Amino acid sequence: MLPTPKKYFLTAAAAEGESTLTAFDNALLSGKVGNINLIRVSSILPPGAEHDPELVIPPGSLVPTAYGYIVSSEPGQLIAAAVGVGLSPDTFGVIMEFSGVCGKEEAYNNIKSMLEEAFRSRKMELKDMKIAAVEHRVVKTGCALAAVPMWY
Amino acid sequence: MLPTPKKYFLTAAAAEGESTLTAFDNALLSGKVGNINLIRVSSILPPGAEHDPELVIPPGSLVPTAYGYIVSSEPGQLIAAAVGVGLSPDTFGVIMEFSGVCGKEEAYNNIKSMLEEAFRSRKMELKDMKIAAVEHRVVKTGCALAAVPMWY
Amino acid sequence: MLPTPKKYFLTAAAAEGESTLTAFDNALLSGKVGNINLIRVSSILPPGAEHDPELVIPPGSLVPTAYGYIVSSEPGQLIAAAVGVGLSPDTFGVIMEFSGVCGKEEAYNNIKSMLEEAFRSRKMELKDMKIAAVEHRVVKTGCALAAVPMWY
Repeated sequence: MLPTPKKYFLTAAAAEGESTLTAFDNALLSGKVGNINLIRVSSILPPGAEHDPELVIPPGSLVPTAYGYIVSSEPGQLIAAAVGVGLSPDTFGVIMEFSGVCGKEEAYNNIKSMLEEAFRSRKMELKDMKIAAVEHRVVKTGCALAAVPMWY
Repeated sequence: MLPTPKKYFLTAAAAEGESTLTAFDNALLSGKVGNINLIRVSSILPPGAEHDPELVIPPGSLVPTAYGYIVSSEPGQLIAAAVGVGLSPDTFGVIMEFSGVCGKEEAYNNIKSMLEEAFRSRKMELKDMKIAAVEHRVVKTGCALAAVPMWY
Repeated sequence: MLPTPKKYFLTAAAAEGESTLTAFDNALLSGKVGNINLIRVSSILPPGAEHDPELVIPPGSLVPTAYGYIVSSEPGQLIAAAVGVGLSPDTFGVIMEFSGVCGKEEAYNNIKSMLEEAFRSRKMELKDMKIAAVEHRVVKTGCALAAVPMWY
């Protein structure tokens, strides 16, 4: 089987680029996840996974990551992305991602509601939340991104 | 290399949620794949993989999964998702996914046609098919999802 | 951790199909990656990874792959996809993907610009580039696909 991740951190960042994909790439760099290979996952924090904001991951590594992002080419538009981890007292957690044409506060509140619903659906106690959010006013082509990379 | 999966099952389920992502999350829960990390793959059943509908996968595991889904926020709309596995006599199989604004029967028939085409394209004999399909009448925000999780 | 890939190649191919997903499937087959499980990654070439255009990957394998594709059902439309690997003198490289309603040359040039920007953003020297591009005139439902599968 594929090994289950043991560590994680949250990141949220935004950037401009000359194209859609380079705006995304620059947002990844700005969020300190630009030189690894993100593998998108939906979206459970494994039991016992430790929060480690100082995690250093070697370049090119395959990194299971829950993320949301938005790219916009409409100058002046406000875009936002947020990601949240909901923690249970004693087992796995749940990760939620959001992105949209809105500000950071709305993105933050959406994540909060989504985590609360996810724990209600599972009949689990939501002990704590960690949320990272970012907003960005588009200049030419901008990207807002929020991610929870998971590692070992 | 990443280990090649040895087992699989099919699931199809639908649910409502308060947001797009929580409707998806609730459909995953309803399909018994809500507490794992789906890694989306395209879409081959490894040679020798065994069908195991009783598979229990630990929470937070990284699970290679072929899936299709649709989320709709149009009350009254009928949505459907289906997934199919085409089996060969002696080697790998092919997985196809479908989702759309239609009923279960149309989703089922689409998968059947797609599997037949996939085997014609490969000049392989299609020995057997397993198909799972679901339909859902949207109340507020609904998701129909069909998946083939693969495991070890 | 997940093992970091050590080899890669580039492929670009196009095909028709009777549905969106089978057009994609046929393009994968045409590009010699139709019988494996692509896991989409964003998009770094690991340090030391070797270019091996003769790579043979067993069917059903889980293969980390950066790719871009476009499917069109508009007969007569010209679609294209391209993928590029930017190489540094001594460390990791960067992979860029593009797809759009355009010809092969435009796709090629977009990839070139994106790789140049990606290396400027990282303040790294772009020593060499490998690019694969394809264009396709849609008959009924066509797919143009370009990919960088990575392996061990």
